[in-house]
Amino acid sequence: MEPKLQALKTRLTEVNDLQMAAALLQWDQSTYMPSGGAGARGRQMATLSRIAHEKFTDAAVGQLLDDLTAYEQSLPFDHDDASLIRVTRREFAKSVKIPSALISEMNQHFAQTYQVWTEARPANDFARVRPLLEKTLELSRRMAECFPGYTHIADPLIDFADAGMKANDVRRVFSELRAELVPLVKAITDQPPADDSCLRQFYPEAKQWAFGEGVIRDYGYDFQRGRQDKTHHPFMTKFGLGDIRITTRFNEDDLGDGLFSTLHESGHAMYEQGITMAYDGLPLANGTSAGVHESQSRLWENIVGRSRGFWEHYYPRLQATFPENLKSVPLDTFYRAINKVQKSLIRVDADEVTYNLHVMIRFDLELALLEGSLAIRDLPEAWHTRYASDLGVTAPDDRDGVLQDVHWYSFNIGGVFQGYTLGNILSGLYYAKALEAHPDIPAQIGRGEFGTLHNWLRENIYQHGAKYTAPELTERVTGGPLRIAPYISYLKTKYGELYGV
Amino acid sequence: MEPKLQALKTRLTEVNDLQMAAALLQWDQSTYMPSGGAGARGRQMATLSRIAHEKFTDAAVGQLLDDLTAYEQSLPFDHDDASLIRVTRREFAKSVKIPSALISEMNQHFAQTYQVWTEARPANDFARVRPLLEKTLELSRRMAECFPGYTHIADPLIDFADAGMKANDVRRVFSELRAELVPLVKAITDQPPADDSCLRQFYPEAKQWAFGEGVIRDYGYDFQRGRQDKTHHPFMTKFGLGDIRITTRFNEDDLGDGLFSTLHESGHAMYEQGITMAYDGLPLANGTSAGVHESQSRLWENIVGRSRGFWEHYYPRLQATFPENLKSVPLDTFYRAINKVQKSLIRVDADEVTYNLHVMIRFDLELALLEGSLAIRDLPEAWHTRYASDLGVTAPDDRDGVLQDVHWYSFNIGGVFQGYTLGNILSGLYYAKALEAHPDIPAQIGRGEFGTLHNWLRENIYQHGAKYTAPELTERVTGGPLRIAPYISYLKTKYGELYGV
Repeated sequence: MEPKLQALKTRLTEVNDLQMAAALLQWDQSTYMPSGGAGARGRQMATLSRIAHEKFTDAAVGQLLDDLTAYEQSLPFDHDDASLIRVTRREFAKSVKIPSALISEMNQHFAQTYQVWTEARPANDFARVRPLLEKTLELSRRMAECFPGYTHIADPLIDFADAGMKANDVRRVFSELRAELVPLVKAITDQPPADDSCLRQFYPEAKQWAFGEGVIRDYGYDFQRGRQDKTHHPFMTKFGLGDIRITTRFNEDDLGDGLFSTLHESGHAMYEQGITMAYDGLPLANGTSAGVHESQSRLWENIVGRSRGFWEHYYPRLQATFPENLKSVPLDTFYRAINKVQKSLIRVDADEVTYNLHVMIRFDLELALLEGSLAIRDLPEAWHTRYASDLGVTAPDDRDGVLQDVHWYSFNIGGVFQGYTLGNILSGLYYAKALEAHPDIPAQIGRGEFGTLHNWLRENIYQHGAKYTAPELTERVTGGPLRIAPYISYLKTKYGELYGV
Repeated sequence: MEPKLQALKTRLTEVNDLQMAAALLQWDQSTYMPSGGAGARGRQMATLSRIAHEKFTDAAVGQLLDDLTAYEQSLPFDHDDASLIRVTRREFAKSVKIPSALISEMNQHFAQTYQVWTEARPANDFARVRPLLEKTLELSRRMAECFPGYTHIADPLIDFADAGMKANDVRRVFSELRAELVPLVKAITDQPPADDSCLRQFYPEAKQWAFGEGVIRDYGYDFQRGRQDKTHHPFMTKFGLGDIRITTRFNEDDLGDGLFSTLHESGHAMYEQGITMAYDGLPLANGTSAGVHESQSRLWENIVGRSRGFWEHYYPRLQATFPENLKSVPLDTFYRAINKVQKSLIRVDADEVTYNLHVMIRFDLELALLEGSLAIRDLPEAWHTRYASDLGVTAPDDRDGVLQDVHWYSFNIGGVFQGYTLGNILSGLYYAKALEAHPDIPAQIGRGEFGTLHNWLRENIYQHGAKYTAPELTERVTGGPLRIAPYISYLKTKYGELYGV
């Protein structure tokens, strides 16, 4: 079997090389590319994605997978070779259903749409992106239609990001969660609001950058295998397990923006940096699902980075960095400020408690768009309506409404947002298991020590990459399926203490 | 013929997309890539280059070219379609002789060697790169051997860069040039040396950057279709005609380093930015040869950027930028400093008069290596010997000897250096023609106005891209072949006045 396996790995690595090059084209488009490069860039990304898809879906790959079936079955389930063959077979079965031309068309369209969005958002000009978004919806439907037999048209798209989940599964989990969150939000927002004015002062970008970078170094993000740059919308990307980058953005009038986005993206990046190096270039060298990925970013951003213990250690350093802003602000005031719960307009700036309500709005709108019960032209209004009913707020314009998130303007519609809330739920679930194993973790965080937690995550989650599906991983780590109780318990304990509810 | 031509363009654009992505991988490796990315990066560039080569040398391309012969012959020589078919046919005929595996092997090897060189040079550790360089020489020979029937083994490699020239042609031109340069250098260096101490003070990088960027904006380098970053070794690269970038490096203890490298690379970039946009993605969208390319960089760096008129305009601005360094330094002293002729160690820092002697050393060493009359292990010593005999200087170590230039550590050996001196010769030749057409150009330069010169170059050289070979272009622009007289006359006039010789 050795030569067949080697042949498979060679082909998969070639495909990966093309995908990583496409990722670099995208990173560059978001960070440094001059505007004149946009036209060719979309075409280039489309070409690379199409060739990668053609090479992956080649009949020779199917033949190799068939030839390797007996070898796979002779091995234990979690043997690396068996896992590579199993995971590749699953991706192959999906990919062969999608025409290369559609991949190419989508990538070219997304690159163009992204470019227009970067100008349309500051200009509050939804009309400019509307025809592009209509095309996105059409392409997203065509992608879903490659998988006939679905229950809901969003199912195939959700499956790409969170394999094993269907629209109805997500709805069920979200509805269970909403039943807990709505009364919690009400109880909290019935209290006097926290004062977060200390965050809304002038914080020079260079100092914000240095402080955030210092924290993520302490977390264990490896700058030998990564770097941080600035973009409109923060993200994590990789060009191999030796080069996993994050981006951030800063708001000099709001300390929280840049800092927590840095911590967030470092969580994504540490997950990928922790994957077994031997998987590099192969389909195992990926986070296993959008939800699990998000669990890692939210864990480091919120459970760690917004905890009282964390700030007992870092607040003196932050005060020393920004003495003019913070020297007379007590730790408790600062801690309340960064955990202020409020019904607000912007998802990425939302507190932990209301955040999921933002996600649910997007998820429901995605389903409605795909079903055809909502048209793109009515989307801005539908957005405002849902924000009014769910969060009691109305954006003054589309800039902070339907134009706020990059996702629909750089990817398909559908399967994109559920991962954020699944990730929150999983972050609580996994963290509870880490605490069971190492009850000392919160005390360590209070000393700025993250090694025990980082190692537990590497051991239990990171190293496996895509070897286990999200349900398999969760079963393995927690002994059961995804459940919301530990996350709800985390929220109630933390915010109960903060708001006396 | 329309569908065949369209099919050819589609294929060529696909090949170009892969090449441009490979160029971005390389740019990123030189600018921002963390060290952990190096391993996969070489493989990725190799994969993309190989697939581009496979797609370009596909029999279908040959068939399309055959099918288009009649159409080509029905058109005037300089019709865009005829030129595209002609130039593509020429490149195709060369490319099909090279196995894709060799392309892949070379690219992977170059990426690895480059990475090692970036560490070996500061460490003065030739031994570390020696085995890699031996492999480079072997690969370079194998590349040349793909073209049997050559007179000199370097001929096929020279042909890639400066089509139409053979080793013997270059030798003849170089020998003619050397006969003029050696007595000129002697006459100048018999005079008291210029005082360039005003350049060797502390010049903060940020201010150098801003000043240089201001000049190249004035030149006409378009930052909407380009940008500047920092690298070990400055270069120009492109990812399409809408995205043509330059890199530079700064030395805070020497003003000339960064400034003139910026002007130099901007010349390369303006050439590419001036190519007819309709050629984008096709083989016509390239500078036509190494020599012609270099003529544009040297023209803007030296003939313009080291001229007295230029500094009559810019010196007050430079003094205002660096008052502590320059406010008491007269223009004449500064002008002499930036044109100081001296026998020195570093090619890129060499003055206009001695520069070509540096190139000739490298060219001769390349030929000797390829012929087998010089071994890589003896290269550092051969380098020192030639510098002692030709320039009367000896580097204290290999850092400023054989390790100084990136070329052999990131590309093949052979065909690499002759373009620099051909470029100098052509810069004098073309500039003389521009002056014939517009005698007012020097006066305009003295007012910081570059439009007439830039437009003349765009009209006569830039727009054509690779439509004409270098000999065709030179014939077209100057009415005759390459000749050294105008360049020698430029040097003698300028330096005769400066040194009274």
